[in-house]
Amino acid sequence: MSKPRLFPALALFMVATAGRNMTRPAYVAVLVGVAMMVLLTVDPAYEAAHHWVDAVLWACLAFFVFEWVVRLRHAVQLHRGWTYALSGRGLLDAVSAAAIPLALVLGANPKSAWLLGIFWMFKVVPGIPGLRQLRRVLVQETGPLLSVLVIFLMVLFLSSVAMYFLERDVQPNSFNSVPAALWWAVATLTTTGYGDVVPITPLGRLVAAFVMICGLGVFGLWTGILATGFAAETRRDNFLKTWESVSKVPFFAALGPAAIADVTHMLRTMDLPARTTIIRKGQQGDCMYFIADGEVEVDLPGKKVRLGDGAFFGEMALLGNNLRSANIMTTRVSQLLVLDLVDFRMLMARHPDLAETIDAEARRRELENK
Amino acid sequence: MSKPRLFPALALFMVATAGRNMTRPAYVAVLVGVAMMVLLTVDPAYEAAHHWVDAVLWACLAFFVFEWVVRLRHAVQLHRGWTYALSGRGLLDAVSAAAIPLALVLGANPKSAWLLGIFWMFKVVPGIPGLRQLRRVLVQETGPLLSVLVIFLMVLFLSSVAMYFLERDVQPNSFNSVPAALWWAVATLTTTGYGDVVPITPLGRLVAAFVMICGLGVFGLWTGILATGFAAETRRDNFLKTWESVSKVPFFAALGPAAIADVTHMLRTMDLPARTTIIRKGQQGDCMYFIADGEVEVDLPGKKVRLGDGAFFGEMALLGNNLRSANIMTTRVSQLLVLDLVDFRMLMARHPDLAETIDAEARRRELENK
Amino acid sequence: MSKPRLFPALALFMVATAGRNMTRPAYVAVLVGVAMMVLLTVDPAYEAAHHWVDAVLWACLAFFVFEWVVRLRHAVQLHRGWTYALSGRGLLDAVSAAAIPLALVLGANPKSAWLLGIFWMFKVVPGIPGLRQLRRVLVQETGPLLSVLVIFLMVLFLSSVAMYFLERDVQPNSFNSVPAALWWAVATLTTTGYGDVVPITPLGRLVAAFVMICGLGVFGLWTGILATGFAAETRRDNFLKTWESVSKVPFFAALGPAAIADVTHMLRTMDLPARTTIIRKGQQGDCMYFIADGEVEVDLPGKKVRLGDGAFFGEMALLGNNLRSANIMTTRVSQLLVLDLVDFRMLMARHPDLAETIDAEARRRELENK
Amino acid sequence: MSKPRLFPALALFMVATAGRNMTRPAYVAVLVGVAMMVLLTVDPAYEAAHHWVDAVLWACLAFFVFEWVVRLRHAVQLHRGWTYALSGRGLLDAVSAAAIPLALVLGANPKSAWLLGIFWMFKVVPGIPGLRQLRRVLVQETGPLLSVLVIFLMVLFLSSVAMYFLERDVQPNSFNSVPAALWWAVATLTTTGYGDVVPITPLGRLVAAFVMICGLGVFGLWTGILATGFAAETRRDNFLKTWESVSKVPFFAALGPAAIADVTHMLRTMDLPARTTIIRKGQQGDCMYFIADGEVEVDLPGKKVRLGDGAFFGEMALLGNNLRSANIMTTRVSQLLVLDLVDFRMLMARHPDLAETIDAEARRRELENK
Repeated sequence: MSKPRLFPALALFMVATAGRNMTRPAYVAVLVGVAMMVLLTVDPAYEAAHHWVDAVLWACLAFFVFEWVVRLRHAVQLHRGWTYALSGRGLLDAVSAAAIPLALVLGANPKSAWLLGIFWMFKVVPGIPGLRQLRRVLVQETGPLLSVLVIFLMVLFLSSVAMYFLERDVQPNSFNSVPAALWWAVATLTTTGYGDVVPITPLGRLVAAFVMICGLGVFGLWTGILATGFAAETRRDNFLKTWESVSKVPFFAALGPAAIADVTHMLRTMDLPARTTIIRKGQQGDCMYFIADGEVEVDLPGKKVRLGDGAFFGEMALLGNNLRSANIMTTRVSQLLVLDLVDFRMLMARHPDLAETIDAEARRRELENK
Repeated sequence: MSKPRLFPALALFMVATAGRNMTRPAYVAVLVGVAMMVLLTVDPAYEAAHHWVDAVLWACLAFFVFEWVVRLRHAVQLHRGWTYALSGRGLLDAVSAAAIPLALVLGANPKSAWLLGIFWMFKVVPGIPGLRQLRRVLVQETGPLLSVLVIFLMVLFLSSVAMYFLERDVQPNSFNSVPAALWWAVATLTTTGYGDVVPITPLGRLVAAFVMICGLGVFGLWTGILATGFAAETRRDNFLKTWESVSKVPFFAALGPAAIADVTHMLRTMDLPARTTIIRKGQQGDCMYFIADGEVEVDLPGKKVRLGDGAFFGEMALLGNNLRSANIMTTRVSQLLVLDLVDFRMLMARHPDLAETIDAEARRRELENK
Repeated sequence: MSKPRLFPALALFMVATAGRNMTRPAYVAVLVGVAMMVLLTVDPAYEAAHHWVDAVLWACLAFFVFEWVVRLRHAVQLHRGWTYALSGRGLLDAVSAAAIPLALVLGANPKSAWLLGIFWMFKVVPGIPGLRQLRRVLVQETGPLLSVLVIFLMVLFLSSVAMYFLERDVQPNSFNSVPAALWWAVATLTTTGYGDVVPITPLGRLVAAFVMICGLGVFGLWTGILATGFAAETRRDNFLKTWESVSKVPFFAALGPAAIADVTHMLRTMDLPARTTIIRKGQQGDCMYFIADGEVEVDLPGKKVRLGDGAFFGEMALLGNNLRSANIMTTRVSQLLVLDLVDFRMLMARHPDLAETIDAEARRRELENK
Repeated sequence: MSKPRLFPALALFMVATAGRNMTRPAYVAVLVGVAMMVLLTVDPAYEAAHHWVDAVLWACLAFFVFEWVVRLRHAVQLHRGWTYALSGRGLLDAVSAAAIPLALVLGANPKSAWLLGIFWMFKVVPGIPGLRQLRRVLVQETGPLLSVLVIFLMVLFLSSVAMYFLERDVQPNSFNSVPAALWWAVATLTTTGYGDVVPITPLGRLVAAFVMICGLGVFGLWTGILATGFAAETRRDNFLKTWESVSKVPFFAALGPAAIADVTHMLRTMDLPARTTIIRKGQQGDCMYFIADGEVEVDLPGKKVRLGDGAFFGEMALLGNNLRSANIMTTRVSQLLVLDLVDFRMLMARHPDLAETIDAEARRRELENK
């Protein structure tokens, strides 16, 4: 393939995807680029195929330079050139594109210069699923985590000084300074235990046993804090997800957040096995349903419709005593949220605007059905 | 024992158990087969008893071949031969039966060929208790677990490249390529710490300390996520178990899922010590009970009946103001679920069909008692 | 001190404490005995003071023999000799007393025979606080824990066989059989990582990396399951503790478990800072309090009374509209459980027997105060 | 800089900060002092700059002596000299100031004497965020944690004795006594695994495998207990924080703790996305809000006011049917606590003093607005 043809193709890719967070070709380029960078350091492999490795590495670099140029141009057109260039993502794009050429120009050993390709990996970060949730947990639990870290550092330093004092005469090579003892302490306190440096005096071993047990304790605290944080975050996420489902229902959309929060709190969770009939045609309806997780099948005349996560059904029941108009059953183990008519009416007493919205909607539908 | 007699006995076993998930003789065959396979590799033991080891291994193989043939025939009779043959279980049966003979035919070293017997172990998988629950947790927490895995891989690669850069000149044997450094990184980040490859430069040790602390963090996140998932799954399991208990009560069976869910939510958990009297004969009854976990003893005239998990009693109280007809007490620490008459009546206001069912049942019992 | 005097003193100790679970002198004997047993194995220490070590060991042994005899005699007097002798505790007492003399008689090396003194340690088991709670968690979570254990074993065997296959030619000394590979696998999967046996082929290292990551996973699952179990057990313990507090209140004692459970569920938890006034003299009382954790000070005329965990106060308020008769304030951060008059009255509608009890109590107090 | 000038500056610092828990210059002195103490043990570094290192160390020591003297004088002026001198903090100050000079006077090697500077590190303890929370968790979970510790110690001793018995003949250097075996056991049970002492007999390896798996179990229990404790502590902290927010509202301040606890329990949590309008000017208000976490912007005429954690707004709604007087929206993802008018009125039925307070407040505001 000639180069003049490769570049337009790449450009098309890039233009098509320039507005999105992370593009599929960029993922592939990161993967291939890092793999080649690793291969470059394996002498027998590199000697056998150094033309190919070099070619692919240069192509990846070209791709990232190209990406940077396209994004920069796109940002300049929107008069946000500097904003992009100085943002975290802009800087990462710049480093990905310019670091290796710069190192080569400055006369670095090519094998070392290409190692800078490891920065390409950070381009994957915005695409990691659940990273936002993880960061929130870390932010929320900063206080306890920091205090565990301080305890960790104090045990580290105390035990290092003690060990240096106890072992320096017996093992002058391993414990010749406090930093050397720190190396032992960090490998022990994290329960890594390389075994390259090991105390041999009885007192030193006693200190070491204490440090190992502290390691378990620090570990346990750390985990306990993170587990608690995750549980809270998950609860919160579920609430926000439910909220979103509720606010998508047409006649709830106009309500204020206090009313939506009230509705959300009134929802009862209901776990159902697969193939359970939820609504029977002709029954008196007394509640509406939201699908939190799972799927239901609506048995309409002539066809079967499936509803998935976030969908709702049976909302007519809240507008009057209408009879159910179709059979609905779960297709797999599902989690539904139920809003009872009785609860809903109690809610209307609190939120007069909700009552008005509902009345208007009921009148509209009545007219429609006439 | 002559072979002609052994095989019919085996066949009887198999035919009797062909329809079940996992059979006791198969468990034994897996256990014995894997043990022999292990023994085969221990030279002194094998030399001492190679006739026995070989005989047992061949018998196990025969068993699995036989099992496969019986199952295949059974499936063909039900016109589902291909379905079974291509299902996960069918393929496992085929591999268990055919892999070793095939390897031997293709001229592999017998000691290596028999190692394929390790695949027999997978036959135990469907019988593991709680595996379904475990899988659900892993599925539900896929998002956060994946994001921790990506972080894990990023720390792994970054630290390997850094270590390769810092240590390759000092320890050309241990850190001669990035893959070699990856080997160090994975042993360090998982806090395994073999100690066969250890950084010796001050900067390398600093990076290593950072990697170890990251290891603790990754570990903590991992555990926190799984703990949260398990807590949610346990809650959900309890709800489904309660649901099942409720739906077994005759006059609840006809209700829709919304009413059963309502009943389930109205149940209050009650932990009782052993030998506590729950119901006294002649008292006014005002609630019914479900046994979530434990056992009660009903003191009927002339005999004592014991009720276990999932049983219910005192349901008459919901049909009218009948007096309690027997003493009932716990035999050990038990967890009961209580449904109060008052709550139950509130429920009837919401679910008119429930009221009708109850009325019909009460009338039926009244007639019966006349 | 002459021996004839030592033994009566010991006998007095033992008789006084024979009925209790674990006696203080026995704890001391276990501690001293095990310490001496350890010292016996340290050659320089033993050579320096072997008279003392031997004397103390024989004294400990004598103590345990004596303890066994006294307990056995005590049990025989209660006609439960065999019950005790064959119970876990009886057998442990017998082993503690007889194992070492038996080994010495059978001609074992004294240094090895005294090692059996390690069995003395089990005498401490019944005295461990919270052991019952721990066992309940393990029993409740048996299912998931077993399934993790099975997964653990499967990974162990699979990786051992793979490693034996991959490394046996390169390292015939370390991986010369599957059991030898199992030794590597268990050290790796538990992230212990001794480093005495380490894979050196690239494929072997890949398998090892996979095993290490599995180790993290198994660890996380294990911890997650135990954390969930502990949370449930703690909740349950709290309920039972509250129940106990409630059933100690005189006029609740006569109620059935359903009513007590109802009261327990109606209690609201209230965390209060230190030095907060809960009740002011002369105020209208509308609730009663239980102390779940902490302490309050009642400011009675002329003296100050302190109430601790499990105590209750303000119960008069439930019997009528009596005015509070004293100031009550917390002395440290405390957790109270509050039972509101309004909730309590709703409860009386459900439980007519409670209403009668309360009326009777109120009349009794009225008469008393006249 | 001449010394006479340095000291007055230091004195000014100290006098200004003597009453506070931990002073910024003291933090710096601890950091610099410990860093220098570490540097002192690194021979090449110390040889290159020993004048500087010594000078800084003496300066730090002078600072701590000075701090001690100032604090002691301050305490004596308040007639609490002995109280301070014998308190934990007073003793730490004394040790920080006097230990090194004392060691030098007693003729210790300077390099060893300065190691006592590690005690300076404890001065940071009172400043660690969240340490109080951590300590509460440890105190609350003392029972289960102790029982895990006892199990840990029992496994440790049992396995050590077993290992000593099994390995002493094969490895007389590594397992020559039970204490030596304990060293192996502690490194194995904590999954540190140095690998300096490793069993080589088959039975020894079986025991070791068992110890490693026990290590996982102990670890899991430990973490599970701490995670549960943290979850409970976090819930409790949140309740106390909410309580504090509630008791800051002027017209709640006069209420008793029972009423404040009631209000706190009635608050519903509401998570809102950023830029969501909570209150619209002119709407009918029916609830008040507390900010648990986040920020809102009040759109007053002519200016925008931001309210942060712990602030409250919309409290007028509880005093009457006033119309909302301003638009309020969130500036970022926020967590609000909502107190509904309806709930609040139900509360007033229970707490007549609350009703009076509210009436008085409403009348006061009415007069104000006239």
